[in-house]
Parts: sequence; C-alpha cells; structure tokens
Amino acid sequence: MRARIRLPFFQDSSKRIATAGLIESTFDLKGGDMKIAVLGTGSVGRALAGRFAELGHEVAVGTRDPAATLARGDYAAWAAERPGIALAAFADAAAGAEVVVNASSGAHSLAVLASVGEANLAGKVLLDVANEMTPSDGLPLVGANETASLGERIQRAFPSARVVKTLNTMNFEVMANPALVAGGDHTVFVSGEDAEAKRVATALLEQLGHTDVLDLGGIESARGAETALAFWLRVRMALGHNRFNFKIAR
Amino acid sequence: MRARIRLPFFQDSSKRIATAGLIESTFDLKGGDMKIAVLGTGSVGRALAGRFAELGHEVAVGTRDPAATLARGDYAAWAAERPGIALAAFADAAAGAEVVVNASSGAHSLAVLASVGEANLAGKVLLDVANEMTPSDGLPLVGANETASLGERIQRAFPSARVVKTLNTMNFEVMANPALVAGGDHTVFVSGEDAEAKRVATALLEQLGHTDVLDLGGIESARGAETALAFWLRVRMALGHNRFNFKIAR
Repeated sequence: MRARIRLPFFQDSSKRIATAGLIESTFDLKGGDMKIAVLGTGSVGRALAGRFAELGHEVAVGTRDPAATLARGDYAAWAAERPGIALAAFADAAAGAEVVVNASSGAHSLAVLASVGEANLAGKVLLDVANEMTPSDGLPLVGANETASLGERIQRAFPSARVVKTLNTMNFEVMANPALVAGGDHTVFVSGEDAEAKRVATALLEQLGHTDVLDLGGIESARGAETALAFWLRVRMALGHNRFNFKIAR
Repeated sequence: MRARIRLPFFQDSSKRIATAGLIESTFDLKGGDMKIAVLGTGSVGRALAGRFAELGHEVAVGTRDPAATLARGDYAAWAAERPGIALAAFADAAAGAEVVVNASSGAHSLAVLASVGEANLAGKVLLDVANEMTPSDGLPLVGANETASLGERIQRAFPSARVVKTLNTMNFEVMANPALVAGGDHTVFVSGEDAEAKRVATALLEQLGHTDVLDLGGIESARGAETALAFWLRVRMALGHNRFNFKIAR
C-alpha cells in the first residue's frame, strides 16, 4: 500500500523539478504530516530530523541501539530540546514511516538498511543522502566511481524500495537550511528510477527551502552526484569552510 | 627569462581570485599583447584561439601537420575568417609563445606536449584545459580519478613548465564566452603549483569574461576539477544541452 500524502504547495511552486519522465503523482503532501524515519544519529541525521520535525512532520530517528544512543551526551542534549522526535531501533523507526531517509555513514548504509529489512522499506520513498568515503593520507577517498554508486547498490539490494539519491552534494547544514548559502540560490539533485518518489523528494526538498531541484535521471546518475564529492572536498579545502554549494548556472 | 606582461585590469576587478598562497606577480598584462600558442585544432582550440585573437593577443595554433590541418574543410573555413591567427607545427607554435594552451584531446596531450618539447615549455605558463575520456557503452569514462589527473601527469612530465589546470569543467563555448550562460555568473577553477602562473591564468580568464576564478590549490587539486567531468556529463544529459556551468554558491 502506498502512503497517501498531499502536495498542495506543488501547484504554486514557481520552480519546478525538471519534468523529463515524470508521471502524475498519486502522492499528496500536506504542509507537514508525513511520517519520516531518519536513519542515523550523526550530524546529517540530526540536521534533517530536526528540520523535518520543525516543518510539522512526524519524525522518528533510527539507530542501532537506542539506549546506547541516548547515553551519548551529544544526542541526549539534542533530543532533550526536541521531545517530539522519537528514537527507535532502525527497523522500528522505519516500520511506521512513509519516507525513510538514509543518513547513516555510507560505509555502513547497506548494513543499516539490512537491519531495517526490506519489508519495512517496500514501496516506500527511500531518500539516500549518504556518501561513502574511506580515510587516506590526504583527502578521504570517495567510494563511488563512474561504474558504481552507493545509491545503485542500495536500490539493487532493496528492489522494492523507491530509492532517490539526493542531498549528498552538500554539507549537512546546507542540506537542512539551504538559505544559509547565497539565500538558497543553488542546486540540489535527485536521481532515481521512480518518478513519483522523485516528486515526493522534490516536495520535501522544497519544504526544506531548496529552490532548484534538478532531476539527473535514473539511479545510475547517482554516480555523478556521488563522484562530485571529490570535487566538493577540494572546493572545501580552497574555501576553508563548508558553507557553499554547487549551483548549475544555465 | 620570464615573459613581461602587464595586468592593469587586475586593480579594478571587483571579483578577486581566492588569494591563498598567491604571491605578488612580476607579470603585467596589457589588454592583449601576449603571445599565445593554442595546441589543438578542434572545437576547444578554435574557440580559445579565436577569442584570444579577438582580445588582441598574438595567437598561433599548433597542430601535428599544418598542411593536413589546412586541408580540413572545417579548419580552413574557420582560419579563412581569421587571417591573423598563425598555424604551425606544435613545436614551432610554442617556441615563440609566452603562454601555451593545451587544447588537445586528453588522450593525446602527453604526446602532443612531447612533440613540443620541454625546451619550448620551460618557464612558460601552460594552461591545461584538456579532459581525458575513453568511450564506453554508456557515458564516456573519465581518465582522472582521486589519485591521478592529467594536469599532474603533465606537470610531472614537464617540470619546468608552469602548469595551470583550468577551464576543463565546462563546454568549449562557455570557456571562450562565459556570458553565454547566466550572464557569466558562474565559476572557473585554477589548480597549479606556481602562484604567478595562476595570476596570469586568472588575468586571461577575466579577459575572456570569467567573473569568479577560484584557486583550488596545487596541481593535485586538478583531481577535483577533472573528476568533475563525470558529474558534468550527467548534468548535461539531464539538461539536454551544454550551455551550463558550475557555480560555487557561497
């Protein structure tokens, strides 16, 4: 069964997602009434969970061991200010959700999603915002390349999930608060096989304040968004801070 | 001996290159009095050679076999309209130049520069605008990765040249006429070991109309600019045209 959500702000949004291949959505999204599970309790997960809750969504954060997470000072302090946000084991957080956000670190994402289980992902929009990196002597090495991406691996491993790769091309603060950079005048990308899932993703991105959502195509195009991290890291070194983003001038 | 060129427009330029690591230049660049060799007779080489000539520089195009190039209809038609642009063998074009532009296709660049010879490159600013790609069943595969780039290979092969990787992150028309996209409001990158060479590059880029020149750092950072091609290719597929560019919103 598909989530039933309304998207009233779709109609009056002046900037539309690139429409190639999009079908009419059966989803509707009211201002903020979705059930969103955010997997991951790090800076990315907290930034997105916090903003989605502010926007009125019902948010559950998923973690491996809720008791251990609550025993962490950083999480406990953050959660204390946000009593409306639930904390649950990965599978429990995702079970009741309409949208699942993979905000786990890329190296662990497949294991995290395996512990969620495909039954808890089936038919759901799965926003994959993760990047895979491994440390090196210099800058971290990016896991994606031109023939493989984490987004694709997730889609292959969980074929009934409706994976949308997005938001991974920017710092977590910019993900959640795009207006922090150039008043929000920059670009976020979506890649995925399911046009309706990309519509839901676009609606949520616009709620966050993203003004230019560019549909890169199928999940294969996540290779572009994921390999961009090697570029992003060097721009970050040059600027000396994270408060920037790619804009596709056109 | 270093080229003597003046950069009067440096002073009143409102957008400055990111200055990390830059030293005071001994170069000055008058409006358009440099001797520039452009290696390559394809679309990239012609676009840059044509614009540099329009700007008043003395331009020689380098090719493997001038007679064969002139026998090509596309080149002959282009050259007929630009009688001020010389055509010469690679080494001859570069011999008298102050700035050499590698606009050959990336797969051949090292061979092209070998035929120029290090003596004709020593001490000169070498703008490397090439991308290395190999065909595949899908999108072309990019030669650069996080541990290697063409710019670095060129700098290693010709240590006395002052290599600056630049312009490779956009279509050739946008390289030469940045105002074609968003009135020129987008970013071009420079990577190289020599701060003065990056100043000369920046001055030339600003003459072309580039308004935001971002110094990514040493030549290692060419890995960022070169791997960005995998991202660029997918944006290009999504947009269906080449008239776009990356802007670093910040």
